[in-house]
Amino acid sequence: MDSRFTHIVPSSSFNGNTDQNEKYSDDEERSLYSFATALSMSGGDGDNSYSTNSLLQRRVLSKAKPVLVKNTKELIINLNFPKYIKVADLGCSSGQNTLLAMSEIINTINVFCQKWNQNPPEIDCCLNDLPNNDFNTTFKFIHLFSEKNLTCKGSYFVSGVPGSFYSRLFPRNSLHFVHSSYGLHWLSKVPEGLEKNKMSVYITTSSPLSTYKAYLNQFQRDFTTFLKLRYEEMVPNGIMVLTFIGRNTIGNPLHRDCCHFWTLLSKSLRGLVVEVYISKSKRKHLFLL
Amino acid sequence: MDSRFTHIVPSSSFNGNTDQNEKYSDDEERSLYSFATALSMSGGDGDNSYSTNSLLQRRVLSKAKPVLVKNTKELIINLNFPKYIKVADLGCSSGQNTLLAMSEIINTINVFCQKWNQNPPEIDCCLNDLPNNDFNTTFKFIHLFSEKNLTCKGSYFVSGVPGSFYSRLFPRNSLHFVHSSYGLHWLSKVPEGLEKNKMSVYITTSSPLSTYKAYLNQFQRDFTTFLKLRYEEMVPNGIMVLTFIGRNTIGNPLHRDCCHFWTLLSKSLRGLVVEVYISKSKRKHLFLL
Repeated sequence: MDSRFTHIVPSSSFNGNTDQNEKYSDDEERSLYSFATALSMSGGDGDNSYSTNSLLQRRVLSKAKPVLVKNTKELIINLNFPKYIKVADLGCSSGQNTLLAMSEIINTINVFCQKWNQNPPEIDCCLNDLPNNDFNTTFKFIHLFSEKNLTCKGSYFVSGVPGSFYSRLFPRNSLHFVHSSYGLHWLSKVPEGLEKNKMSVYITTSSPLSTYKAYLNQFQRDFTTFLKLRYEEMVPNGIMVLTFIGRNTIGNPLHRDCCHFWTLLSKSLRGLVVEVYISKSKRKHLFLL
Repeated sequence: MDSRFTHIVPSSSFNGNTDQNEKYSDDEERSLYSFATALSMSGGDGDNSYSTNSLLQRRVLSKAKPVLVKNTKELIINLNFPKYIKVADLGCSSGQNTLLAMSEIINTINVFCQKWNQNPPEIDCCLNDLPNNDFNTTFKFIHLFSEKNLTCKGSYFVSGVPGSFYSRLFPRNSLHFVHSSYGLHWLSKVPEGLEKNKMSVYITTSSPLSTYKAYLNQFQRDFTTFLKLRYEEMVPNGIMVLTFIGRNTIGNPLHRDCCHFWTLLSKSLRGLVVEVYISKSKRKHLFLL
C-alpha cells in the first residue's frame, strides 16, 4: 500500500508572506503539524517497506516515460540549451523508484544535448517528500544512481527537500522542471463532511454522494493550492509532468472500479472492530486521505 | 566522539568534466566509494548518538557565533540586500546542532533587513554531510526550527545535500554563503606514509615526524581541493565562515596537547588487541582520518 500522505501545513519552509487560502493560528498550526509528522511511508528496504513494495508505482513511471522524455526535450529547447536547470520530483518516496525519473531526465538531457552538439547543463535534482519520509534509504541508493550515470557528460547534484508539496518548498522563480508521479491523489487533510460515510475509509459503492463530493472538494482545493505554489516557484517556460490516478467511469462516481481496493480495506477494518482488535471509536477516525 | 568522516570520491554528484587533481579509474572509484559509504556518525537521538553527544560541537558553534553574525551582515551588504541567497552548511552532522547555525543566519538576516527597512531575501538552507549521515533525524527537528523562526518575516527552504565536501556538491556560481563548523579537520582518506606509526591511530608524542608530515600533506591536499571546489560553486562577493580545530603549540607538532585524546584511544585499542577483542592485523588498518 502506498502510504504517501501530504499535509497543507508548511513544515520545512515557512513563508511569512504566504498568500495561501488557508491560514491557521499558531496553536492550530502546531496541532496540524503534529498530525502531518505522524504520517509517513514504511521506511527502510525490508520485506514490508515501501521501497520493496512499490512495483505498481514503478510500472506507472515506466508507462509515463515517453511523456517525461518528450517534455524534457521540450524544456531544453524552451530554455535554448541552458547552462543550468533545476528539477524537482515532488512526493518522491524512498527507495530505488525515487531516482528512476531523475535518471531518465538526466539521461534524456545528455543524449539530446549530445545530438545537438551542445554542452549539457548542470542539473540540480531535488527530491521532495514529507519530513518523515525515509530520505536515508534513498540517499543510500545514490551510489547506484551515480554508477548508472557515470557516462553522463554533465554534472548533476542531488538533494532531499523535506516538506509537503501543499506548502512552498522552493524559492520564487527557481524551478525549471517539476515532476510528480503517483503522489498528487493524496490529500492534505481529511475532507470535511464525511459524517455520513460511517465505517468506510474512503468512497464505496454504498457511500452517499456527499462523500464523493467531500473528497472532490478537498482535491480541488488541494490541487489549486499545489498549482498556485508551483506557479510561484517555477520560471517562465518551465514544464510540469504530473502523473495521476484517473477514472475510467465518469458517469457514476461511486462505481466499483474507482474504489474497490479501499472497500476491501474498509471491510478488513470492520472485521478488526468486530474482533475487538480496534475499538469502534478509533475506527471512526480512520480515513484515507 | 565526533565521527564525521569525509571522502574525496564524488558520491551524490558526478562531474564528468571534473578538474580535480585526483582522478580514479571506474574500479578505483567504486572501491573508494564503498570505503566512503562505510563511514558515518552514530545516527538517531539515543544515548549513544552523535546528536546526544555533541555538546563540544555546540560550544564551538556558540563561540564562533559573533564571527558568523558579523559575516552574515557583511554578506547582505556585499550583495546589496538581495532577494535571494543560498547558504550551505558543510559537514552539518545530524541532530539539533545541525540547524543552530542556519537559525542564527536566518535570524541575523531578518533583524538586519528590518533594521535597514529592507525586505528580507528568500533563503535556501542547504545542509550537507556524507550520504550515510542520518538526515532523517535532522529532518525530524525541522518543525522545532520552524517554530523557532515563526516570527521570521522572510521565507526559507531547507534541503539535505548528501555527499562529500571534497567533491562538487552545488552548481557553479550558485552559493552565496558557506559555513562549516568543526568538520574540515576530517580528511578525505588515510594519509600515505603511516607505516612507521605502528599501533597508533593518529599522531602521538612518540610518533616519527614523518607521521605528522603525512597528516599535514593530506590536510593540505584536501583543503586545497575544498577551496578549489567552493571557488567553482560560490558567487563573486560570497562569504565563507570556516571553524577549525587549531593548535596552541606551533613549535612542536608532536606536543601532547595536540593529540592526547587520540593517544588514549590508541592505547585503548592496543588493550583490545592484547585481550584479543581485535586482531593485530585488523588493528593495523585503524587510522583516524
